[in-house]
Amino acid sequence: MPTVNHVVRLIARPVGEAKRGDFSFTDEPLPPLQDGQVLLKTLYLSLDPAMRGWMNEGKSYIAPVGLGEVMRAGGIGQVAESRNPRFAVGDYLSGTTNVQTWCLSDGRGFAKVDPQLAPLTNYLNVLGMPGMTAYWGLLDVGQPKPGETVVVSGAAGAVGAIVGQVARIKGCRVVGIAGGRDKCDYVVKTLGFDACVDYKNEDVRKGLKAACPDGIDVYFDNVGGEILDIVLGQIRLKARIVICGAISQYNSTTGVKGPANYLSLLVNRARMEGIVVFDYAPKYKEAALEMGGWLAAGKMVSKEHVVEGIDTFPEALMKLFKGENLGKLVLKVA
Amino acid sequence: MPTVNHVVRLIARPVGEAKRGDFSFTDEPLPPLQDGQVLLKTLYLSLDPAMRGWMNEGKSYIAPVGLGEVMRAGGIGQVAESRNPRFAVGDYLSGTTNVQTWCLSDGRGFAKVDPQLAPLTNYLNVLGMPGMTAYWGLLDVGQPKPGETVVVSGAAGAVGAIVGQVARIKGCRVVGIAGGRDKCDYVVKTLGFDACVDYKNEDVRKGLKAACPDGIDVYFDNVGGEILDIVLGQIRLKARIVICGAISQYNSTTGVKGPANYLSLLVNRARMEGIVVFDYAPKYKEAALEMGGWLAAGKMVSKEHVVEGIDTFPEALMKLFKGENLGKLVLKVA
Repeated sequence: MPTVNHVVRLIARPVGEAKRGDFSFTDEPLPPLQDGQVLLKTLYLSLDPAMRGWMNEGKSYIAPVGLGEVMRAGGIGQVAESRNPRFAVGDYLSGTTNVQTWCLSDGRGFAKVDPQLAPLTNYLNVLGMPGMTAYWGLLDVGQPKPGETVVVSGAAGAVGAIVGQVARIKGCRVVGIAGGRDKCDYVVKTLGFDACVDYKNEDVRKGLKAACPDGIDVYFDNVGGEILDIVLGQIRLKARIVICGAISQYNSTTGVKGPANYLSLLVNRARMEGIVVFDYAPKYKEAALEMGGWLAAGKMVSKEHVVEGIDTFPEALMKLFKGENLGKLVLKVA
Repeated sequence: MPTVNHVVRLIARPVGEAKRGDFSFTDEPLPPLQDGQVLLKTLYLSLDPAMRGWMNEGKSYIAPVGLGEVMRAGGIGQVAESRNPRFAVGDYLSGTTNVQTWCLSDGRGFAKVDPQLAPLTNYLNVLGMPGMTAYWGLLDVGQPKPGETVVVSGAAGAVGAIVGQVARIKGCRVVGIAGGRDKCDYVVKTLGFDACVDYKNEDVRKGLKAACPDGIDVYFDNVGGEILDIVLGQIRLKARIVICGAISQYNSTTGVKGPANYLSLLVNRARMEGIVVFDYAPKYKEAALEMGGWLAAGKMVSKEHVVEGIDTFPEALMKLFKGENLGKLVLKVA
């Protein structure tokens, strides 16, 4: 059994982008297993824009990672040793493994996943948090009706790709917003969106106007900033804006840019509402079953972008903010 | 019968505050009555913050007032002559009289009001548009539950005063925000709010914190700007923000300030939604009956701030933006 754990700890609160110097990378002794515990070998870690928020002090939907603590991360691990009757050696588990090569846990918050049903990385994507966020954010908060026009930003990213596919399957016209021709091609050709606006090479206002000539019924926002304002200028009566994230603002050192067009909510009797995935924990299974069926039937794809090496964590995370990932970004640890 | 109408027309699109020079004041011949028409003598005009928006070009919830057109206004008139079987000479009517001493109309959109049941000016206040806006905006969009904390800005203004009183009657804890000690005293002592924060003389953040120690469940926003941001920082889980207006922003020449704290909607799974009163036209009667009962029972007050003289229209309107009115601002014409 291993006696050394390689651990990435948050040692400084990042200013702007998270940098290598904000973390420590150390080998630490691994204590022996206690009754009720399992030892997991970390296989894959989920890299999410929300992690940047967890590094900030202050009240949010989840406590910040404390200075000196192991950086929080969801992941997939395999049971190497177990003194917990719920888990057997060899089981694959999904849960908060954190950024370390070994995770000693009492098993709370971990669930078994089956590599026969889907590739392990899918459990960090469509069958994991991004999937649950997309499914419940779109369906419960956005409440799209068949025939309505749904717009999604970050369309080639983990959550956005799932939102658009679910909306398509539910009978909506789906328009993505993504950065670069390759991503837009992927969004339309692989994910089956009706159109995708390239914010890096197009006038987003004009592109959306062309793709959504009758206006926008549901907007699922992962980016905030100027794109949110542009969309607010094109919503229809009774539109719903799902606020899931604001990746354009997370590294800002000059404060968040509020949506100057928010009075469009008044003019259009529209609604802007936030979603936090944890609220839907009792309903994760329902979503996983439905989306698992769509994956199996080939109606939906779960695409992961895998990078390797636990010590590349800071640079790997920053790929999200630079738009360098195509699909759900996953860090392969072992 | 009169042959001359004194008319206030919009002749320029205001930049920033509306000024006297943006209007013309002319005596014009009054054409003779046609079959189906009524001639109304304008008694009172409603002065509303929304009027400033009607003067701007561009798409909104209602068409802008055209250049050269009579300035739009709701009002109360008395029938001086009638060739419409629905209305008799002497009847009092409420509707869009516009800013003129006489209103020739086919009667569409006008409803009879009864000066025996309530003072005429009440029909421009609790029993008119501000009342309908407050009642439906609070109850349908804000959905307050007994025991919840409701905060209202512009609390001494027409809509705010009604929102707070309805919320109080419905069993909520009610906190106002108003400008100046006199207004705050009025809001607490006359309208029965639990507390009122004086934004002109207090730190609003601290004042709200003290008045709402458990946070804010419903915020009815009439002002926008910095106060909206402060409230967003103090909302509770699943809070509802009703966007009714943004008087702090209507005269801005540098663009609207968006709420930088909008991500509090995400953290708190909260909702921000706009209200336009016209959507509730089929339900006006229901609200008027309930609030009329509260007025009669002394549970609620309908306070109007009356100024006189049709030619003072521009300066009278600006009182709203300077916060010089206490209660619903009404212009007495005849």
